[in-house]
Amino acid sequence: MAGSMLDSGFPPITRRLRLGVVGGGAGAFIGRVHARGARLSDRWQIVAGALSSRPEVAQASGREWGLASDRIYSDWREMARAEAARPDGIEAVAITVPNHLHHPVAMAFMDAGIDIICDKPLVNTADETQALIDKQRETGVVFGVTYSFAAHAMVRQMRQMVAEGAIGPVSQIHTEYFQEMALLPAGSAWSGTPWRQDPAKVGGAATTADIGTHAHHLAEFVSGLKLERLRAEFHRLGAEQPLEDTAYVNCRYQGEVPGTILISQALAGAQCGLRIRISGLRGTLEWDQENPEYLHHRPFDAPHIRISRGHGAGMLADASRFIHMPRGHPEALSDAWGNLYEELAIAIEARREGRQLPADLLAYPGLAEGASGVGFIRSAIRSDAEGGVWTDVSLTA
Amino acid sequence: MAGSMLDSGFPPITRRLRLGVVGGGAGAFIGRVHARGARLSDRWQIVAGALSSRPEVAQASGREWGLASDRIYSDWREMARAEAARPDGIEAVAITVPNHLHHPVAMAFMDAGIDIICDKPLVNTADETQALIDKQRETGVVFGVTYSFAAHAMVRQMRQMVAEGAIGPVSQIHTEYFQEMALLPAGSAWSGTPWRQDPAKVGGAATTADIGTHAHHLAEFVSGLKLERLRAEFHRLGAEQPLEDTAYVNCRYQGEVPGTILISQALAGAQCGLRIRISGLRGTLEWDQENPEYLHHRPFDAPHIRISRGHGAGMLADASRFIHMPRGHPEALSDAWGNLYEELAIAIEARREGRQLPADLLAYPGLAEGASGVGFIRSAIRSDAEGGVWTDVSLTA
Amino acid sequence: MAGSMLDSGFPPITRRLRLGVVGGGAGAFIGRVHARGARLSDRWQIVAGALSSRPEVAQASGREWGLASDRIYSDWREMARAEAARPDGIEAVAITVPNHLHHPVAMAFMDAGIDIICDKPLVNTADETQALIDKQRETGVVFGVTYSFAAHAMVRQMRQMVAEGAIGPVSQIHTEYFQEMALLPAGSAWSGTPWRQDPAKVGGAATTADIGTHAHHLAEFVSGLKLERLRAEFHRLGAEQPLEDTAYVNCRYQGEVPGTILISQALAGAQCGLRIRISGLRGTLEWDQENPEYLHHRPFDAPHIRISRGHGAGMLADASRFIHMPRGHPEALSDAWGNLYEELAIAIEARREGRQLPADLLAYPGLAEGASGVGFIRSAIRSDAEGGVWTDVSLTA
Amino acid sequence: MAGSMLDSGFPPITRRLRLGVVGGGAGAFIGRVHARGARLSDRWQIVAGALSSRPEVAQASGREWGLASDRIYSDWREMARAEAARPDGIEAVAITVPNHLHHPVAMAFMDAGIDIICDKPLVNTADETQALIDKQRETGVVFGVTYSFAAHAMVRQMRQMVAEGAIGPVSQIHTEYFQEMALLPAGSAWSGTPWRQDPAKVGGAATTADIGTHAHHLAEFVSGLKLERLRAEFHRLGAEQPLEDTAYVNCRYQGEVPGTILISQALAGAQCGLRIRISGLRGTLEWDQENPEYLHHRPFDAPHIRISRGHGAGMLADASRFIHMPRGHPEALSDAWGNLYEELAIAIEARREGRQLPADLLAYPGLAEGASGVGFIRSAIRSDAEGGVWTDVSLTA
Repeated sequence: MAGSMLDSGFPPITRRLRLGVVGGGAGAFIGRVHARGARLSDRWQIVAGALSSRPEVAQASGREWGLASDRIYSDWREMARAEAARPDGIEAVAITVPNHLHHPVAMAFMDAGIDIICDKPLVNTADETQALIDKQRETGVVFGVTYSFAAHAMVRQMRQMVAEGAIGPVSQIHTEYFQEMALLPAGSAWSGTPWRQDPAKVGGAATTADIGTHAHHLAEFVSGLKLERLRAEFHRLGAEQPLEDTAYVNCRYQGEVPGTILISQALAGAQCGLRIRISGLRGTLEWDQENPEYLHHRPFDAPHIRISRGHGAGMLADASRFIHMPRGHPEALSDAWGNLYEELAIAIEARREGRQLPADLLAYPGLAEGASGVGFIRSAIRSDAEGGVWTDVSLTA
Repeated sequence: MAGSMLDSGFPPITRRLRLGVVGGGAGAFIGRVHARGARLSDRWQIVAGALSSRPEVAQASGREWGLASDRIYSDWREMARAEAARPDGIEAVAITVPNHLHHPVAMAFMDAGIDIICDKPLVNTADETQALIDKQRETGVVFGVTYSFAAHAMVRQMRQMVAEGAIGPVSQIHTEYFQEMALLPAGSAWSGTPWRQDPAKVGGAATTADIGTHAHHLAEFVSGLKLERLRAEFHRLGAEQPLEDTAYVNCRYQGEVPGTILISQALAGAQCGLRIRISGLRGTLEWDQENPEYLHHRPFDAPHIRISRGHGAGMLADASRFIHMPRGHPEALSDAWGNLYEELAIAIEARREGRQLPADLLAYPGLAEGASGVGFIRSAIRSDAEGGVWTDVSLTA
Repeated sequence: MAGSMLDSGFPPITRRLRLGVVGGGAGAFIGRVHARGARLSDRWQIVAGALSSRPEVAQASGREWGLASDRIYSDWREMARAEAARPDGIEAVAITVPNHLHHPVAMAFMDAGIDIICDKPLVNTADETQALIDKQRETGVVFGVTYSFAAHAMVRQMRQMVAEGAIGPVSQIHTEYFQEMALLPAGSAWSGTPWRQDPAKVGGAATTADIGTHAHHLAEFVSGLKLERLRAEFHRLGAEQPLEDTAYVNCRYQGEVPGTILISQALAGAQCGLRIRISGLRGTLEWDQENPEYLHHRPFDAPHIRISRGHGAGMLADASRFIHMPRGHPEALSDAWGNLYEELAIAIEARREGRQLPADLLAYPGLAEGASGVGFIRSAIRSDAEGGVWTDVSLTA
Repeated sequence: MAGSMLDSGFPPITRRLRLGVVGGGAGAFIGRVHARGARLSDRWQIVAGALSSRPEVAQASGREWGLASDRIYSDWREMARAEAARPDGIEAVAITVPNHLHHPVAMAFMDAGIDIICDKPLVNTADETQALIDKQRETGVVFGVTYSFAAHAMVRQMRQMVAEGAIGPVSQIHTEYFQEMALLPAGSAWSGTPWRQDPAKVGGAATTADIGTHAHHLAEFVSGLKLERLRAEFHRLGAEQPLEDTAYVNCRYQGEVPGTILISQALAGAQCGLRIRISGLRGTLEWDQENPEYLHHRPFDAPHIRISRGHGAGMLADASRFIHMPRGHPEALSDAWGNLYEELAIAIEARREGRQLPADLLAYPGLAEGASGVGFIRSAIRSDAEGGVWTDVSLTA
């Protein structure tokens, strides 16, 4: 094993920021993923948590995570208060609870002056979104939203190639995200998160909120184009199911660029099939989440090119910052989460130390991207409800 | 090299049917492809042709094809008359001319009692379609339409697996067909067939007619479900271009099964990217025209399976008829054309000899499938023109 | 479907050469493959055959192949005599019988002045090889050996890229050919060709002769380097099996270039896994028989490139002659056999008409390549017998 | 993102073990990889290090790693002494220095009662190996050797499938490991580790020691068969290069099972191409390090199966312990290192607490596997030196 470890362009590590986690206890999946990212980045120490609202689960999980007993909470409000009061209190909080709790939890920690790392989708309504925006403006905290897929090195490569004109003017954007979990029987993981099909908790859309926002963010992030209009049709497997498991969305991005977003959690045999193809007049770029180390470049009338992560060999600056292993030694989703937590650490440390960072150094998703996701969900719900009409994408859709 | 050559279930070859070709001279591509299929099937001899309307081209091409000089024509009307009058006249004609000529040529040869092998799309209008249907009823000739992709062994395998319930009830159908030829500069192959962008010759749609009908046919053929409603949006690269090069079609198949058809001839880097995914409640099947030997079966919550053409090992009867090479010795598009010409020869020979064939022996596309394609085109044009509204698929759309 | 059909650089078709076939009746596989190639090339008519030594099989097969009854033979000696005496007698014969008959059949037809298209491996012994060489020198006939894989367009592309220095000086050559047929139970296709395990009929090696010669030819053909020395070890699944089903061969090509040839017909799950990787100081080229449309070019310290068959886009002259379908419309093994039969027709027609062809126009394998294959087999047998010692590759090994 | 997180069967985390690292400072690559694994496993805290023998590099790296200043060493002897003397001294040491230092460093830390995590290859000579074995017997410490690739979940799956008979009796094992780094120009990463071509530091073999041992270990680990005999030929690009960059090894595993190991660091275009194919009478399993989430199962005469990591769907117990992300959310090399460090933590914690673990719970490579690698290197060197003769694999070869 070998390879050169060039400078990433990121500031060196001088200390580990103190992180707290809300959610993530016991069977909760995504909280553990956040924690893996924080650990891999080596820029964080997890020192407090309200890992569950059930005290005994919170305690057991907290001990397993190595938290001091006085920093294991079962009430996130208490955690916000107590941590804000400590001299060694947490500097940021990872919010990994069901969607409808994102808003109150984030508000409480922002009020406590603590920086926010919030899972997606941001919140369920336009009002909640606006409240977060206002609160951030008031408090000045860093607010990251964990669209983690965009933190893969090859997604950054894709984005920079598009920006630099490698495929010419963008002409079509096709994104899809297919899973099969909605077909799982009762008692399985999907039914183990019944809140995902509870309209009150997910804001009127299930799959569109859960994975559609990933697809939508990725398309905007990589293309640099905002989604301006959409029309959506929702499908569900059975009438007894309250919310959609499938949505087909026709898109119009800035400059009238057309595209599609196809999402389903009821596509049998699919695993985590998030795939994006961006086509320009001179070529197409394709990236597939399940094989994240490769970026497929198909220039017009020319052989296909497979770019793989690693220093040199055409890797651009934005991607090179995220190279931890030499080419051919694969990185994957834990590494992407590590990248995201690295960027967030740099942003948060800089804010806390009053340092200014170069404008283009970081590209983590923030409140604007989170709000864009809420707009996508709200607009899709409205379009579907009105028979699939073209709808402007906005928070107030 | 080895492998067993089992019986195909098809009647053995006893003689070569006499075939004539209209179109196919000089630079014409598709006529040559028809001829390759006819030769590979070993059930045809090409004995006459109106390979071009330009006499000198017709003569030169006819000689190269090995035609007797008195059976080289430059006028297809004359060819129909002369061949019908000969005791050794052609038994079938392959029609490989631009779309707007399909109708008159087919009418003339049907009137002469000659069986028809017509390229797709069938014709440009509902009236023309109806005229062909009436004429066939009157004359009793066999009428095949060359949706050649459906003659791949693995497409037959896919169709039979769906029919036998391998993936459970069909729940989604996603088809796409992407090419880049619309981006070719003037003077290239695409601009060398300018009739493809001439509304009078292609009936109001370009890409939708040229490749969209392939995608539409494949979806109906493999799923066994008719497309009942659609909505379509057309795109073109520049305002000066008369017709669309890109179309996104939302579909409702029988039983309200949803799906999509995405087509573009302006997707840089695409070659001949026809791909279909049929999803049922218990699995998904995927087939890709560029790698036609593999059928990908992704059962629900189970490892993925790659079925490859060859005797045994799960190959079903409909596919097994079309096995010429052992597993691992790849067949491809020429072989698929051979399969199609084999089926057509069997059908035509049986008609001419008054023999009845088993009902399920053959699955070549006929007038009904051709008419379905015209309905698809007309309905898509109308939906797009009216702003992308849902439109019933019918010839009179 | 579309694409440009450029000139191949080959002389146009003016007539169909008359071909006879020895072997190929009933269950015989390879004779049918030859016939598919001949038909696809459109430069041949099959007019005579000794398709089987069993008269009733010969008759039935001959009728199915469309042969006139007086040109259906069950004795190839008689066929050679009778066809040589006819004014419309065959111009070439395809020899598709078991290995030990290649020599007498070829001698008889050469004596009759008929050009030879002989399956591989050429013959079983050095003496037989020398006899054929002497006879060809005496008669002047064309003698082709059907290493058909080398007739794929992308193999020609690979060869020309190596010759033009695309990968720099060749430094390693790794070839493998894996099948599973030796594991088939008695009564199956493999056991249906028991002569393949009969030392008297295959000359002391089974798998090495059957598929090893393909791998060996491909390596020499693509690299342009002769195999000078080898050492081989043979394996068989059971002691009761007379000959090897597996061989590992270490190679030294001209210029002391090292390499390996791994072959087995007892590798469960393999289909027709012939794969070659040629590595030079500046890159590696890889081609896989099961996916023959792609040539993988991996330059040093650069993204990987996938070249696919089709006009332009880097396709070189030698490959462009063999393009029948546009890029993305796949060709496969039938097309490769068509290419080989096209080259042989051009060579044979030129000889018969006393025309000289440009030196580099054709690259079909001839007697020299056939003799090289015999040398490979004999040397491998000797090396294995002597404990795997390094052995010079020569006919007299 | 979703999926069930079942019990791994491993004991829960109760505390973080204290780890020290020797090597890994500044440009050293592999030390950082060890640290990523330790962090991801969440069972370690890195508290001390002799990251470089250059004091200023050791200090800078130590600070970046977050080490307390009194636990940053530039002399590993001093580190062993000082840490052994502390009540909170390290419990294990990761040895990531050049090969020739493995022996003295490991001896020193074993003498200090500290458990050992040593990079591969273990050491350079039979005497050194024996000394480590004796010392471990004397001290009773845990001794792990970081053949990290074997800690991928799908490698564990492969191993258990072979053991459970999924492919029947093993009949052939083909392993290859190709890289291109030996072609890098002076001043690059490869030349930046000139000790890899220094016979005194790597014990007489370069590539065979560096990557050959990975291939050898993987083959033995997955097959459960020991390599008993080999013959090897070494190649180098230029005469001025002291050691081999390429080796072809013929293998005989227990039960006379044949196989090959092909390794090269001079294969242009290769990245980290470690691939293993194990073939039995009923099927073949293949795994490729660059795409580690897939295990390819090719049963005899049946469709190919692609197993991917994730709970259920055929995943066996040994693999399931190493699932951190749901199926389709890819893990990769960092995760494998995390798995290895998790196993080592469990073993070391159990030893220190005097607990007995179930016999089959852990499968990390230990001194026996390290010694086997030294035997492989020594035997290959001897075989090559004697002209490629068959050589028994043993430490004293």
